[in-house]
Amino acid sequence: FDDANRDLSLDERAALIDQFHWVRRETESLTDPLSAEDMQLQSMADTSPSKWHLAHTSWFFETFLLRDALPGYRVFDQSFHHIFNSYYNSLGQPFSRPQRGLLSRPSIEQVFSYRAHIDRHIEQWLIEEDVTAAQAELLTLGIHHEQQHQELLLTDIKHAFSQNPVYPAYREDLDQFADEVDGGTPLEWLHVPEDHYTLGSDGEGFGFDSFSFDNEGPAHQRFQPAFRIASRLITNGEYLEFLQDGGYREPRLWLSDGWSHIQQTTKPGVQQAPLYWREIDGEWFQFTLAGLQPLDLNAPVCHVSFYEADAYASWAGRRLPTEFEWEIAAWLHSKKDAVQAANLLENRRFQPVAEYPTDERDVQLLGNLWQWTASAYAPYPGYRASSEAVGEYNGKFMCNQMVLRGGSCVTPRSHIRISYRNFFYPHQAWQFTGIRLAGDVQ
Amino acid sequence: FDDANRDLSLDERAALIDQFHWVRRETESLTDPLSAEDMQLQSMADTSPSKWHLAHTSWFFETFLLRDALPGYRVFDQSFHHIFNSYYNSLGQPFSRPQRGLLSRPSIEQVFSYRAHIDRHIEQWLIEEDVTAAQAELLTLGIHHEQQHQELLLTDIKHAFSQNPVYPAYREDLDQFADEVDGGTPLEWLHVPEDHYTLGSDGEGFGFDSFSFDNEGPAHQRFQPAFRIASRLITNGEYLEFLQDGGYREPRLWLSDGWSHIQQTTKPGVQQAPLYWREIDGEWFQFTLAGLQPLDLNAPVCHVSFYEADAYASWAGRRLPTEFEWEIAAWLHSKKDAVQAANLLENRRFQPVAEYPTDERDVQLLGNLWQWTASAYAPYPGYRASSEAVGEYNGKFMCNQMVLRGGSCVTPRSHIRISYRNFFYPHQAWQFTGIRLAGDVQ
Amino acid sequence: FDDANRDLSLDERAALIDQFHWVRRETESLTDPLSAEDMQLQSMADTSPSKWHLAHTSWFFETFLLRDALPGYRVFDQSFHHIFNSYYNSLGQPFSRPQRGLLSRPSIEQVFSYRAHIDRHIEQWLIEEDVTAAQAELLTLGIHHEQQHQELLLTDIKHAFSQNPVYPAYREDLDQFADEVDGGTPLEWLHVPEDHYTLGSDGEGFGFDSFSFDNEGPAHQRFQPAFRIASRLITNGEYLEFLQDGGYREPRLWLSDGWSHIQQTTKPGVQQAPLYWREIDGEWFQFTLAGLQPLDLNAPVCHVSFYEADAYASWAGRRLPTEFEWEIAAWLHSKKDAVQAANLLENRRFQPVAEYPTDERDVQLLGNLWQWTASAYAPYPGYRASSEAVGEYNGKFMCNQMVLRGGSCVTPRSHIRISYRNFFYPHQAWQFTGIRLAGDVQ
Amino acid sequence: FDDANRDLSLDERAALIDQFHWVRRETESLTDPLSAEDMQLQSMADTSPSKWHLAHTSWFFETFLLRDALPGYRVFDQSFHHIFNSYYNSLGQPFSRPQRGLLSRPSIEQVFSYRAHIDRHIEQWLIEEDVTAAQAELLTLGIHHEQQHQELLLTDIKHAFSQNPVYPAYREDLDQFADEVDGGTPLEWLHVPEDHYTLGSDGEGFGFDSFSFDNEGPAHQRFQPAFRIASRLITNGEYLEFLQDGGYREPRLWLSDGWSHIQQTTKPGVQQAPLYWREIDGEWFQFTLAGLQPLDLNAPVCHVSFYEADAYASWAGRRLPTEFEWEIAAWLHSKKDAVQAANLLENRRFQPVAEYPTDERDVQLLGNLWQWTASAYAPYPGYRASSEAVGEYNGKFMCNQMVLRGGSCVTPRSHIRISYRNFFYPHQAWQFTGIRLAGDVQ
Ligand SMILES: [Fe+3]
Ligand SMILES: [Fe+3]
Ligand SMILES: [Fe+3]
Ligand SMILES: [Fe+3]
Repeated sequence: FDDANRDLSLDERAALIDQFHWVRRETESLTDPLSAEDMQLQSMADTSPSKWHLAHTSWFFETFLLRDALPGYRVFDQSFHHIFNSYYNSLGQPFSRPQRGLLSRPSIEQVFSYRAHIDRHIEQWLIEEDVTAAQAELLTLGIHHEQQHQELLLTDIKHAFSQNPVYPAYREDLDQFADEVDGGTPLEWLHVPEDHYTLGSDGEGFGFDSFSFDNEGPAHQRFQPAFRIASRLITNGEYLEFLQDGGYREPRLWLSDGWSHIQQTTKPGVQQAPLYWREIDGEWFQFTLAGLQPLDLNAPVCHVSFYEADAYASWAGRRLPTEFEWEIAAWLHSKKDAVQAANLLENRRFQPVAEYPTDERDVQLLGNLWQWTASAYAPYPGYRASSEAVGEYNGKFMCNQMVLRGGSCVTPRSHIRISYRNFFYPHQAWQFTGIRLAGDVQ
Repeated sequence: FDDANRDLSLDERAALIDQFHWVRRETESLTDPLSAEDMQLQSMADTSPSKWHLAHTSWFFETFLLRDALPGYRVFDQSFHHIFNSYYNSLGQPFSRPQRGLLSRPSIEQVFSYRAHIDRHIEQWLIEEDVTAAQAELLTLGIHHEQQHQELLLTDIKHAFSQNPVYPAYREDLDQFADEVDGGTPLEWLHVPEDHYTLGSDGEGFGFDSFSFDNEGPAHQRFQPAFRIASRLITNGEYLEFLQDGGYREPRLWLSDGWSHIQQTTKPGVQQAPLYWREIDGEWFQFTLAGLQPLDLNAPVCHVSFYEADAYASWAGRRLPTEFEWEIAAWLHSKKDAVQAANLLENRRFQPVAEYPTDERDVQLLGNLWQWTASAYAPYPGYRASSEAVGEYNGKFMCNQMVLRGGSCVTPRSHIRISYRNFFYPHQAWQFTGIRLAGDVQ
Repeated sequence: FDDANRDLSLDERAALIDQFHWVRRETESLTDPLSAEDMQLQSMADTSPSKWHLAHTSWFFETFLLRDALPGYRVFDQSFHHIFNSYYNSLGQPFSRPQRGLLSRPSIEQVFSYRAHIDRHIEQWLIEEDVTAAQAELLTLGIHHEQQHQELLLTDIKHAFSQNPVYPAYREDLDQFADEVDGGTPLEWLHVPEDHYTLGSDGEGFGFDSFSFDNEGPAHQRFQPAFRIASRLITNGEYLEFLQDGGYREPRLWLSDGWSHIQQTTKPGVQQAPLYWREIDGEWFQFTLAGLQPLDLNAPVCHVSFYEADAYASWAGRRLPTEFEWEIAAWLHSKKDAVQAANLLENRRFQPVAEYPTDERDVQLLGNLWQWTASAYAPYPGYRASSEAVGEYNGKFMCNQMVLRGGSCVTPRSHIRISYRNFFYPHQAWQFTGIRLAGDVQ
Repeated sequence: FDDANRDLSLDERAALIDQFHWVRRETESLTDPLSAEDMQLQSMADTSPSKWHLAHTSWFFETFLLRDALPGYRVFDQSFHHIFNSYYNSLGQPFSRPQRGLLSRPSIEQVFSYRAHIDRHIEQWLIEEDVTAAQAELLTLGIHHEQQHQELLLTDIKHAFSQNPVYPAYREDLDQFADEVDGGTPLEWLHVPEDHYTLGSDGEGFGFDSFSFDNEGPAHQRFQPAFRIASRLITNGEYLEFLQDGGYREPRLWLSDGWSHIQQTTKPGVQQAPLYWREIDGEWFQFTLAGLQPLDLNAPVCHVSFYEADAYASWAGRRLPTEFEWEIAAWLHSKKDAVQAANLLENRRFQPVAEYPTDERDVQLLGNLWQWTASAYAPYPGYRASSEAVGEYNGKFMCNQMVLRGGSCVTPRSHIRISYRNFFYPHQAWQFTGIRLAGDVQ
């Protein structure tokens, strides 16, 4: 990257200030419906308290930028270096992850002061100091990092609230159940021919438009046999058929590890089902950020694990797409304004919605739900993680996890891309995850 | 109990109102230094959030009194019946204990409203309705129950704060380290002759003075061989000698289960020690409700498990007293004003203090720390638990636990008695627990 | 013990040789029906392979006697000192208990050679050397230790075989189901008056007749209120009533820890029941050392945990006796030839049998099954464990376990005594354990 | 497969009989050094007793062939259908895997009778009945299945023996330490150019030569960027440098899950190292099938997990090859007689040996050790598992495991192929696993 050291123009800085501020405000606005007590909750080791998300994202800017880039910067609180480090072992042993919920101090007020302190100094730096392109990339990374945590903040509070028998609503007024689809949209199959395709992205610039994560590159060529892919996600109604057909009791439909997982998590007398489904007096409900709601059979099934997605595909006589198939289909078949039209965070629905009928050039692969792929998370050919501490961001997780594509109803709009690779363990279901099927072409 | 059905006089009711109010206010005053976030914390399955303690103690009055005793009473919130039930299976399956920290709703404000609601209605009942002696006993039980939870509220928040690497102080201004003892008090041995003694208490009246728990009775006779018992608790300095002598590495000093427990909880590179001891750069500190403090060698060692207490006694060539020996010694040797003079909750030290020299008739067995006895918690001869739901209060725990005697620096003064039997599992150390030695007489 | 150093007479030595040989042969005869593969099995951490029992009992004589007592003795194999040490930390860290089943080497042939080597040298020592009374006591301890392991060998192989879906029989020809009782023996209540009683035994001599374990002493006085105790054990038929009445689903019948244990060990779709009960097509069977057999409703219920025994007693409106009550009743009410008449190891039934009708002076408290008492295992007043390695034999287990009394159908006849204290954890049920009820006298 | 139904010729049948017999004898010969007790051992859930391997491989022929193919065949023992089913849920719930070591019955003699019974009937069938090509394929699958279990039998007994503190040798006379290499072979880099390559194998015929597993196909094209790959495996000496450089203490070298695994399995005071390394008085040894031996610094490091292999590669500034890179390199660079020259089971070394210097057309990628690749185990494009019970053989494991290539010193010679895909979980190290490095080409 030969111009890493060039200084940014005033316009470029102004654009970054805008993006930074906009994202920081958005994060805070997401906590508006939450009390200090809500923001303290951690319901499992995989999740974090809202307060921790607020602080950790600030810590990221302090640690990777302000400490080095802003002359004379003084850290807000020495203890934060340890307690808000997520997993950067290069920076010292991080605070124990499952205990984040035990940090009642710093208080939420102190954390908001911390955020203001960081905001002030980032702004000061962007206005007063020389800013190199390399630093602007780090800032952009921090902005996208914060957007990732916006999504996590919502998935994590949803999980925490789901543990409370009164099923609190994050917001009562979410317009998530507008009945937009009459009857249900038929599932169609998009055909993609055999060819060489270029996949991935090399964009490591700064600003929303040119950025991509290191794990999306290098861009590279692949040979892809012909395949077909579903025009829409699997619905609650379809998944319910699988369940009612005994899908959870038939080992032949399951990967070996998936079957073990189902056996280990079965509770006596309770039907296995997607994470937030609840059967009450013979009727199915699902827990949403608007509280417990009747199951909408036309809406996409969500909060399924990879194991469930794979078992459903087996039951349906199909398979999941590889992440390459998904990406190729998205490049070839997405509608033009796919990102604008997608059900994403800014729609403030926080729940997937039923999909409109589509024609072949107008398919919506983005938004609504992250879609499990058949691809294990692995480096692209030629990938090398940075040797700096920030190199721990993506690379060290390239084992045991599966790639998800597409973004969800809680993913920020300026954050999602076709080349975006999300990744989770195959048993995890607390993200907004869904099922898109694929198949071979004889 | 032949006069269970007699109605209370106006004076008796007035006295109960006083006691009830005083205890309810005291509970709330203990939460003054705590934020909503602090009161949300649950650091292990054995502990509960402060907020839960506030609500559960109110639930107790609602469930065991108001529902039946006050005509027309309407419960504050239907969902509370489940979530604030601790362990009364007769009343339905209680909410999962390790998840109490996940109840951000109801909010702390709602819980204080709940408390006010209960207070108002208990008062109304005591003023307006006939109150039988049996009901007054239940009310007294509820008052003592709340006092138990006052102690737990403090031990639990201490445990929660100890998990935070910044070691927050519950209160900075605790006067716990007044150096009252010059040099250290010599340990003397009190001799108790062989005899028949009457132990336990039948008092099941109402009001602070005549009440005792069902597990303290029936009063009964025991034959006791001669023994001797220490005039004071073991100090931090003495325990440090045991530690420095390799006490934690010598299996012969330990009960078999204690040794296993020590092996399982050893962390690489960390010296085993009492729960809140911390070794920093070669010096010993201990975490207190006033934050991390240098170890006071003259003060009693606290937060030891039964296993540690027993191993220390072995190392010292002594043993722990049985609960009967402790009770006999307390009747024979306690100073007259023992309860008044003891270091208890109202002293607001919240930490054991070094003990004054004593003479044989002026020994202080009460206060400072609960003292592990060699006695497993078991029913006294003739004990029968009530067949009502409240019968689950004490009896069902009479297995696998050890009796502690004496009360601690966080036990309310009007709550402690010589016949009082506390009980915990032998590995537990988060209560204010200490060591008093005993020995045989040849 | 003033004559610990006196030398034994020739007659005394000859008697010891007889006892030693007889017990050693008996152990080996118990392995007659077992293959090398059978003797290798370890089905849980609490149990040991038969081969390990054979070797460990020999190790005991080698370690505590031959090494010191026999001049010029050479150990059979240096590695045995580690691998056949059960729990004597004073002798170095014992081999990991749960891995005893992984010791295919030494082979069973080598272990029998080891036994022959030990036998030869003990004999040589008793014939050729001076033997002191103290040494004779140690030898007697070793003999009784081996008898304890005879019982364990049978309980452990029973547990191992129970894991095999073909339910192998240890011996097909056990005469355990002779229908001795017509109809069933009524349960009567023996009354014992309030009094002072002397309990325990000081006998620490040598030879079968005068020996007792250190935990049975010192003999001491107790004051005992009046009580009553059942004339016979609870039968399978009676226990089945409890089960069919929903006993396993009613938390109020259970100790808190017992209820938790039941919840944790419940398997979906399987009715909780005594350890070896199996429900097949609606009929109850039990696994015995003669294989799977129909449940004999008149025979005593066996292989129940303390939790089950206590819950049954609650359901029946009674309680379990303390170990002191049991011992007093046994002294007062046992038939004269109780030990001779009891169903013990030598009867080769290996299963409890239905009991004959009795009159009050002819009750059988010994044999058939170990009887859970309400007493936690604790030292008697004045008890001190030996400071030698052999001091780890009993004392360090005096925590978290419950006392059982009476001996069982797999206890050797020369091993059992009225003062004998057996002890196990309250959840354990693989020993031959049963239920005798007690009650208060108003 | 259009001629699945054609009948085999006599010659074809004769060849199959030969192969069948030869493999069955080989299995049994591997148990020659083992006692009945040895063959009973199961040291962890991942491993199985030798006896179980002997029976399960026979069960495979009985279940998938004899039951259907041989008219009038009667199963040897009804209970075997359950207890020797490994993981074929379609055939009923298999016997609990971690409890295989508890099956002392059937005895080893019965298992050998079972083998003879199966041998006799397979022979009878091949001689007397019509045999279709499809059946011949199933038989060939059974033969290869048995060869897989030959390898497992050796890896599993090695693991079991490693738990015994006397470190038994499987055979004392293994010629594994012939010092064939003087000084050590330099590591060279083979360059492979960018191109399209055809990978995998469609061979599903019968007989040793034409068979391959379903997971090796379909054969398919891939585009491969240029890369380079090491000419030999990493040695013990090289790995020791990594260890001594603090490799196990530097989180930046490890995948996140690998680092967690290292933390969780660290024992106080014990240096982490490959599974069978032992440090004794400052010197390194390794446990082999010939017992504990000094570490040969020139021999390949073995029994490393994927996590260790990956961390070593990071430390060395390289990476692991993908399974496709490995296969391409093997096709391009293997010496002509690679399979014949490889260190495989028939060499009876049972330990990897130091490698000779090579030139670029004479590299040995086969034998010695299975080589961890960077590829997660996943289906090839177009792969579909059989819908029969035998379809559970490979497909359901395609999640969470990593592919290994090349075969090892305990892999049968007629079993290995360049297209062969082995797979294990990334933390597992009890197979004969090693490290071959790769790198990118700029
Ligand atoms: Fe982060
Ligand atoms: Fe309570
Ligand atoms: Fe023993
Ligand atoms: Fe197999």
